[in-house]
Amino acid sequence: MTTNDAEPIFDVAELASFELYSPDVDATVRFFCDLLGMIETARSGDSVFLRGWEDPYGHSLKVTHRQQAGMGFAGWRASSPAALERRVAAIEQAGLGRGWVEGEVGMGPAYEFTTPDGAVQRLGWEVDYYAPPEAERSIVLNRVQRRPLRGVPIRSLDHINLLSKDVTANKRFYADLLGFRLSEHIIAGDDTEMGAWLRTLTRSHDVALVKDAVGEGGRLHHVAFLYGNLQHLEDACDVLTDHGIEFEAGPARHAISQAQFIYVFEPGGNRIELVGVPGYQITDPSWEPVLWAQDAIDNAIIWYGADLPAEFDTYATPLVGATAYRTPNRYVAAEAAVLFGAR
Amino acid sequence: MTTNDAEPIFDVAELASFELYSPDVDATVRFFCDLLGMIETARSGDSVFLRGWEDPYGHSLKVTHRQQAGMGFAGWRASSPAALERRVAAIEQAGLGRGWVEGEVGMGPAYEFTTPDGAVQRLGWEVDYYAPPEAERSIVLNRVQRRPLRGVPIRSLDHINLLSKDVTANKRFYADLLGFRLSEHIIAGDDTEMGAWLRTLTRSHDVALVKDAVGEGGRLHHVAFLYGNLQHLEDACDVLTDHGIEFEAGPARHAISQAQFIYVFEPGGNRIELVGVPGYQITDPSWEPVLWAQDAIDNAIIWYGADLPAEFDTYATPLVGATAYRTPNRYVAAEAAVLFGAR
Amino acid sequence: MTTNDAEPIFDVAELASFELYSPDVDATVRFFCDLLGMIETARSGDSVFLRGWEDPYGHSLKVTHRQQAGMGFAGWRASSPAALERRVAAIEQAGLGRGWVEGEVGMGPAYEFTTPDGAVQRLGWEVDYYAPPEAERSIVLNRVQRRPLRGVPIRSLDHINLLSKDVTANKRFYADLLGFRLSEHIIAGDDTEMGAWLRTLTRSHDVALVKDAVGEGGRLHHVAFLYGNLQHLEDACDVLTDHGIEFEAGPARHAISQAQFIYVFEPGGNRIELVGVPGYQITDPSWEPVLWAQDAIDNAIIWYGADLPAEFDTYATPLVGATAYRTPNRYVAAEAAVLFGAR
Amino acid sequence: MTTNDAEPIFDVAELASFELYSPDVDATVRFFCDLLGMIETARSGDSVFLRGWEDPYGHSLKVTHRQQAGMGFAGWRASSPAALERRVAAIEQAGLGRGWVEGEVGMGPAYEFTTPDGAVQRLGWEVDYYAPPEAERSIVLNRVQRRPLRGVPIRSLDHINLLSKDVTANKRFYADLLGFRLSEHIIAGDDTEMGAWLRTLTRSHDVALVKDAVGEGGRLHHVAFLYGNLQHLEDACDVLTDHGIEFEAGPARHAISQAQFIYVFEPGGNRIELVGVPGYQITDPSWEPVLWAQDAIDNAIIWYGADLPAEFDTYATPLVGATAYRTPNRYVAAEAAVLFGAR
Repeated sequence: MTTNDAEPIFDVAELASFELYSPDVDATVRFFCDLLGMIETARSGDSVFLRGWEDPYGHSLKVTHRQQAGMGFAGWRASSPAALERRVAAIEQAGLGRGWVEGEVGMGPAYEFTTPDGAVQRLGWEVDYYAPPEAERSIVLNRVQRRPLRGVPIRSLDHINLLSKDVTANKRFYADLLGFRLSEHIIAGDDTEMGAWLRTLTRSHDVALVKDAVGEGGRLHHVAFLYGNLQHLEDACDVLTDHGIEFEAGPARHAISQAQFIYVFEPGGNRIELVGVPGYQITDPSWEPVLWAQDAIDNAIIWYGADLPAEFDTYATPLVGATAYRTPNRYVAAEAAVLFGAR
Repeated sequence: MTTNDAEPIFDVAELASFELYSPDVDATVRFFCDLLGMIETARSGDSVFLRGWEDPYGHSLKVTHRQQAGMGFAGWRASSPAALERRVAAIEQAGLGRGWVEGEVGMGPAYEFTTPDGAVQRLGWEVDYYAPPEAERSIVLNRVQRRPLRGVPIRSLDHINLLSKDVTANKRFYADLLGFRLSEHIIAGDDTEMGAWLRTLTRSHDVALVKDAVGEGGRLHHVAFLYGNLQHLEDACDVLTDHGIEFEAGPARHAISQAQFIYVFEPGGNRIELVGVPGYQITDPSWEPVLWAQDAIDNAIIWYGADLPAEFDTYATPLVGATAYRTPNRYVAAEAAVLFGAR
Repeated sequence: MTTNDAEPIFDVAELASFELYSPDVDATVRFFCDLLGMIETARSGDSVFLRGWEDPYGHSLKVTHRQQAGMGFAGWRASSPAALERRVAAIEQAGLGRGWVEGEVGMGPAYEFTTPDGAVQRLGWEVDYYAPPEAERSIVLNRVQRRPLRGVPIRSLDHINLLSKDVTANKRFYADLLGFRLSEHIIAGDDTEMGAWLRTLTRSHDVALVKDAVGEGGRLHHVAFLYGNLQHLEDACDVLTDHGIEFEAGPARHAISQAQFIYVFEPGGNRIELVGVPGYQITDPSWEPVLWAQDAIDNAIIWYGADLPAEFDTYATPLVGATAYRTPNRYVAAEAAVLFGAR
Repeated sequence: MTTNDAEPIFDVAELASFELYSPDVDATVRFFCDLLGMIETARSGDSVFLRGWEDPYGHSLKVTHRQQAGMGFAGWRASSPAALERRVAAIEQAGLGRGWVEGEVGMGPAYEFTTPDGAVQRLGWEVDYYAPPEAERSIVLNRVQRRPLRGVPIRSLDHINLLSKDVTANKRFYADLLGFRLSEHIIAGDDTEMGAWLRTLTRSHDVALVKDAVGEGGRLHHVAFLYGNLQHLEDACDVLTDHGIEFEAGPARHAISQAQFIYVFEPGGNRIELVGVPGYQITDPSWEPVLWAQDAIDNAIIWYGADLPAEFDTYATPLVGATAYRTPNRYVAAEAAVLFGAR
């Protein structure tokens, strides 16, 4: 019989937008638009705003010019104005708030804060819906627009994965202050929590936190976009290969989340996950977090397919130490010590 | 900007079980187990308990012997014990409660009630998880068991579709008393609401209500099971055809929910929907219900694929009037006037 | 044990090109290029030359302006120069030859002839291979070019289907004079051969001959293009629907050939088949033609999916009688009596 | 314009059967039947006869008990009795014939011979078709039987891959004496031919010859079975993983042949390839063999997906040297020097 009787908090609904830093915005935008079929919806200052064809709002990805690749912020959407108020109060009480941000293209006021790792996050409610040109409207009225005719179009923003100095502390932050629920986690032989996958509503995870092997906190391991089926990921493999985008890993499948994936580097040097077979959904309200212990870690990471390369544990943006940027066609030299705090 | 600022209720989490009446339980069970790979987990009295391989609990489908095909009850699971209490209080206040049911195989106490249409529903919290035999455990720890080696195994129970005397009144019941959210609906030229699709969490719909063309209320139009991809539905088409199961409709695709489907009749005479490409997910907390007006109804029902046959609007279980049971191999004569109230 | 001991003739290798007449060449070309991702490779006179991205030669489809839609010719490629000589000798002996045609864009000399039905065919050997621009070359050296980034790109020309006054006589022509082998046929209750599917090498069929319900001979029922998998056909369904292309039939699956299909009308009014799951391959050298008798005809045509509409038996190009052109967006009025001989 | 004007020989039609040696016939048969859905059709002496559900004859795989894993013989089918005669005459003239074999279960007389590498091959004409029990017949009359309800059923035998002491000499044997055509080959920087892929009719290859890194000739690298689409290979990945079958490589995709694959070891220790997306078809009669030079070898082998492990170049059956049998669950110790000639 069920034991987990806690009343769940559903105050955060979804990951709505994500800011990606790129040293080469043009190349990054071409990658997302020409190959992955994203749609450019706005430009402002150093930023270009993009969305997948099933993303409902004005943008889901904001590409901003910075010398160092990495994450600007992850933008979450609350479940209601009242839910937003509750979460902001909780964050402020924890002393991690940074205050309200206004004026973001297509977004209403959002409250900015950091995770214990220092990763910048925003939580808001108001948002502009994407209004497609008349010619791009679909006869399928429950979707925003018709399927694009360009590239192998990704459907939507899916999730983010951040490296963490202290997975447990950051997991608790998402769980206790924001109401995320833990779906799965990895506990190493020495009882260290090596990774935690948390969800807002029913997606297996909206954010993953993984122990940073080089000891930093809050770096971007990857941001993921969804295809949702086998064939489109296979099509992406075909097209990306023939356009000089080497894969870091995949196609293969994680047991954690069950997602079928490839990992590639966009031209700015950030790791991008493309998801074929999507992760599972959790509607079971008494779901017990799945625990992967030391002896099952290999299975957890790779259900089937080849092992991940060693750099998968250390490469994240911004870079630290002697790492060099991975790009589709070339390595971009990076400075020796780009610490998170110094971005 | 968003306008729908109401604080959502997430008190009902999911459709957890469904009771199907069959005049030929053995044939019905063989259909679900041999062809669709469901797993029999218990027998009790006149009932056989089944589950799809990704259904988490002891059963998701209870097949019970009755002279007339149809629905016994739809069993919903609350999001927490407190959520259960809140919903029971609301139902009792509305005067539609029937009281607590105990002793159901693998289920804790559930509160039974009816919709305004008279369809029997239950809402509970406690439930037994399915405990697979050691040999059937998966190395993928987030799933209940490994993939079966029999038939073309459906993954899980997906949703139900009930015919309704008064769609609007029953929609309000699910929305106001249970906290379901309206995803899509059809409004005919005379302003009659012809259909409503409602969700608990993020699935495009967990229950659909469609105007009963013969004026009854609460009959079972269909219960749906999920494959989740194109190929498994195609495999099912192959296997079902070669085992004498004729399709009523499909493969085709609804615009409402975007689900790719086939409709077949199980040997007891109930209509079953098998879903290939699944319906979309809604995480947008200010989702405005999609309105399909008179001029878009055809598209709403069939995005692409052939039109549905006329009987799709009238055949439901239990039968009424001169309808005859549709079965995979034969028509089973049914009594002339099997009214809903007389089951 | 095997009984069919005849030594097979493999003198015709493949359908290499096809000329389609369109009253609206621009619209036809836009349909094939914008939506189906074909590549324009040449223009000459009233004709535009196109190819699918996996078609090896300079073109596989020649779209030529004519008042009446229909087929110009089907262009076959011999297995060797000697094979070409043998087949031309056989055709000449049968009195159906028209002589050599030279100067076709990208094609060497071809021998033109007619079937007993009067359908124009060509057989040649020399052909120009498509030479992609450097930027479009694939790292996969066994393919002609990389996958296009436009539309839902069909892979290649697949087969043709011609209506016939006398299926048996025309079947014998392909079999006896050209060396095609019979894969499947339909014999009605009165012993009339209603359809015949013939192959050159291993594809279930390269040409189909179907009894013309209105008594003409040699009209184009459809020309088919290959996707080769479920998802791309589903993608085409999505895109075509949202660009105003209504389906005549499908998605559904023929038992004959096992091909999964949709039928649509290109803007010129010709019926086009798009094939998802491809037909089967025959490598068995003693394959006995599959006979579909009267009682199995329905299954032969539709394995699963909805029945074909009545016009499927009568609509072909050029039109005859009072038929009107079917086009994606509109019906184009056509003259009352466009007989085959009058094209 | 085309240059390759040779008249092709189509005297060998297909790979019809294959004998696999296994030290553990029961386990091997369970692997093929329980997991891969093959059907046992006969037992005789030390052998069990199996077929995939789309294999037309009484068997396509013969599993025979031997201490050492490896290949018994590859059984080819001629295109006609006359073609058989021609090929036998050519082989006899080359001095590689062993004489006629009679009495094989379900097969007529076959002529046995060896390749220059010493690999045993047979060529025959007469064969028994599989006659399914009435209940297993399909309404789809062009197929042998209906789709099985067990495991993730492979469709059919696809091709074999043999390691070779001298790829060029053995390639010439298949081409000159049997009429196979070269589809693709690899030439290393020192002009050594490292691999050759040859076809009988239109399949990208029916036999592959790869340079044996340990200098033997005629060992079995792998025998391949076809799924023909992405999903079934993915299903196989799922089921095999959960039944303790580790993958040697894949899922990934070869550029040579374009086949999407996994490689696993059956319990007898032989490497098995399972093919998802099938290889391409060649109908072009003047196809120029694709040459992969030194700088493209990596792409040739792996189009996308992880690199193959080092043992992929050396492990073949029978084993040589200090190699140990790879089996799904365990390593089986093997004798130090199992030479091909000593089987």
